[in-house]
Amino acid sequence: MAENTVLVPAGALLEACGRILEKVGVPPEQARIIAEVTVEADLRGIGSHGLLRLPAYVHRVQAGLMAADTRLKVVRERGATVLLDAQGGFGQVAGVYAMNQAIERARQHGVGFVAVRNANHFGIAAYYTMMALPHRMIGIAATNAAPSMAAWGGTTAVLGTNPISVAIPTGQDVDIVLDMASSVVARGKIRAAATKGERIPLGWALDAEGRPTEDPQAALKGTLLPIGGPKGYGLALVVDVLAGVLTGSDYSVYLASVHDLSRRASVGFVMQAVDVTAFSDWAEYTKDIASLIDVIRNSPRAPGVERIFLPGEIEWLRRQQYWQSGVPVPVKVLGELQELAAELGAAVNLPSA
Amino acid sequence: MAENTVLVPAGALLEACGRILEKVGVPPEQARIIAEVTVEADLRGIGSHGLLRLPAYVHRVQAGLMAADTRLKVVRERGATVLLDAQGGFGQVAGVYAMNQAIERARQHGVGFVAVRNANHFGIAAYYTMMALPHRMIGIAATNAAPSMAAWGGTTAVLGTNPISVAIPTGQDVDIVLDMASSVVARGKIRAAATKGERIPLGWALDAEGRPTEDPQAALKGTLLPIGGPKGYGLALVVDVLAGVLTGSDYSVYLASVHDLSRRASVGFVMQAVDVTAFSDWAEYTKDIASLIDVIRNSPRAPGVERIFLPGEIEWLRRQQYWQSGVPVPVKVLGELQELAAELGAAVNLPSA
Repeated sequence: MAENTVLVPAGALLEACGRILEKVGVPPEQARIIAEVTVEADLRGIGSHGLLRLPAYVHRVQAGLMAADTRLKVVRERGATVLLDAQGGFGQVAGVYAMNQAIERARQHGVGFVAVRNANHFGIAAYYTMMALPHRMIGIAATNAAPSMAAWGGTTAVLGTNPISVAIPTGQDVDIVLDMASSVVARGKIRAAATKGERIPLGWALDAEGRPTEDPQAALKGTLLPIGGPKGYGLALVVDVLAGVLTGSDYSVYLASVHDLSRRASVGFVMQAVDVTAFSDWAEYTKDIASLIDVIRNSPRAPGVERIFLPGEIEWLRRQQYWQSGVPVPVKVLGELQELAAELGAAVNLPSA
Repeated sequence: MAENTVLVPAGALLEACGRILEKVGVPPEQARIIAEVTVEADLRGIGSHGLLRLPAYVHRVQAGLMAADTRLKVVRERGATVLLDAQGGFGQVAGVYAMNQAIERARQHGVGFVAVRNANHFGIAAYYTMMALPHRMIGIAATNAAPSMAAWGGTTAVLGTNPISVAIPTGQDVDIVLDMASSVVARGKIRAAATKGERIPLGWALDAEGRPTEDPQAALKGTLLPIGGPKGYGLALVVDVLAGVLTGSDYSVYLASVHDLSRRASVGFVMQAVDVTAFSDWAEYTKDIASLIDVIRNSPRAPGVERIFLPGEIEWLRRQQYWQSGVPVPVKVLGELQELAAELGAAVNLPSA
């Protein structure tokens, strides 16, 4: 998968991303936020949620399906909670604003819970949950997405892979950052197997008739399988209620894909901050976290396992590496960025694809 | 699995459970709560968390490892949050108190988040989350447990199956009630296969060397596998931080099993209530939930699937059935209850085993 990439400095990507967005009318400060969230995905090795998506964002704005200027409106608030309307704007701008609100509320109430309606794809959920970390808070986020999984026992897609992220401060260099979809694998992995002509393991996907399949082509016409069977189905459903129904956004089959240029998508999400110091002394908490991490890291390893990682640790290591080396951008993605920049007359400083 | 059971009216089980607990010094009002939570598990068909556990609770009280009288102390509070110390008492008493507190805080702040330290096994998490439903609130709960799963890549148990429950009001007869462990299956399922001399599917467990196994005997010496591999490991770890570390309870390998009569267990949990009306009009919310449920239920079914269920629906149907027919109690469990009652001189009205 890593073949045919070009190493590009993160700074150049941030700049290019921001300039492209400004050219379609995104205010500079918002363009900077969207660029940061987007490039963070690539830095962490989650290319599927990074720059790869930028053309779709731009096309949605150009088609009038997404607002270039994201203006947030407070719909309701009560104590520790807020409901925001993103009015069809960028999920990244709404997400950063929402988590900042959650953090602020948590300072006063111990916990803050902010829901957002009528937004769009927000990139990686971990970006927002990690915002809580320097405040000695635990960040929690979940969003819904266009359907790609069946209900448990069903054959057609009715639920998104609806990710959940939890970021936990440790007081150490590496924090605990879980960011997981409710499906066993992402659709991209099946697409990759199809491209290479490889089979996929049983348990990844169902065909269009709801039968387990090892054929990636059949899987792409079918649905992704949830983790733990009915459990992952339950998680995805719960997230769709919280992010979709509770916020007053679209849900289930009514939520359009980011790639569907025929209609708007009203994506919803929820963000929560939990202040560690509302429950524990920071010193005591970090001592216990350190001891927990020691147990995990030093537990005996299975054959062939070199090291036990914390959730998010691989992404954190990758980020440090890519920050130094440059981010490996697939040639195809780089080409699309350059095309987009040229089309829009955005001055970017990217290596040739 | 259902063979060798006796149908016992739920009322008789509640009474027996309460009387047995009173005989070891549990105050009557608390004994009633513990009995209700415990029998609810059996009513919902989750026998592993029901009356089967009563002898262990009683033995822990008798051994001085658990307080008969659960007295809750407020350790900290800030706005929407509370930290309670259960002072070594019953998880059920602490759990009901905590969720009531969370509901109360949610009324004022939109959300309430209550953490409990120094408690014990609290039965099924769904009991507490369902408490939020009549208040038009979403209930969320998670608890840690003695280790039975390895870290991802590890071979020894360092994390419990650490369940998460979310109950969502629908305004219909059946609500959405997710209650899931982070492991693919419970240890009981592997024990059952071992008893019957059957193999287990790959993906349920690892042997003591961390290798996938189909041999239930090897699996019982090894560890349970988490759902979705690193994802379930991440979920279990996150719950151990929230329920164990954040609350100041035991965590990971330091948390004793309920069956270990050599030491105290300081179990922790977190309970959250989210008031639907802080985010949505009830009428609008229930209309959307109904539409979501319709899509799920009416989606085309895979071969051999008769019906698509909501999370918790099977348990809800079972409860209605068992409430009418009586609860099928395994002969072994019934015998243990009678033995316990006889030992303690508790007057119970149970059929003979």
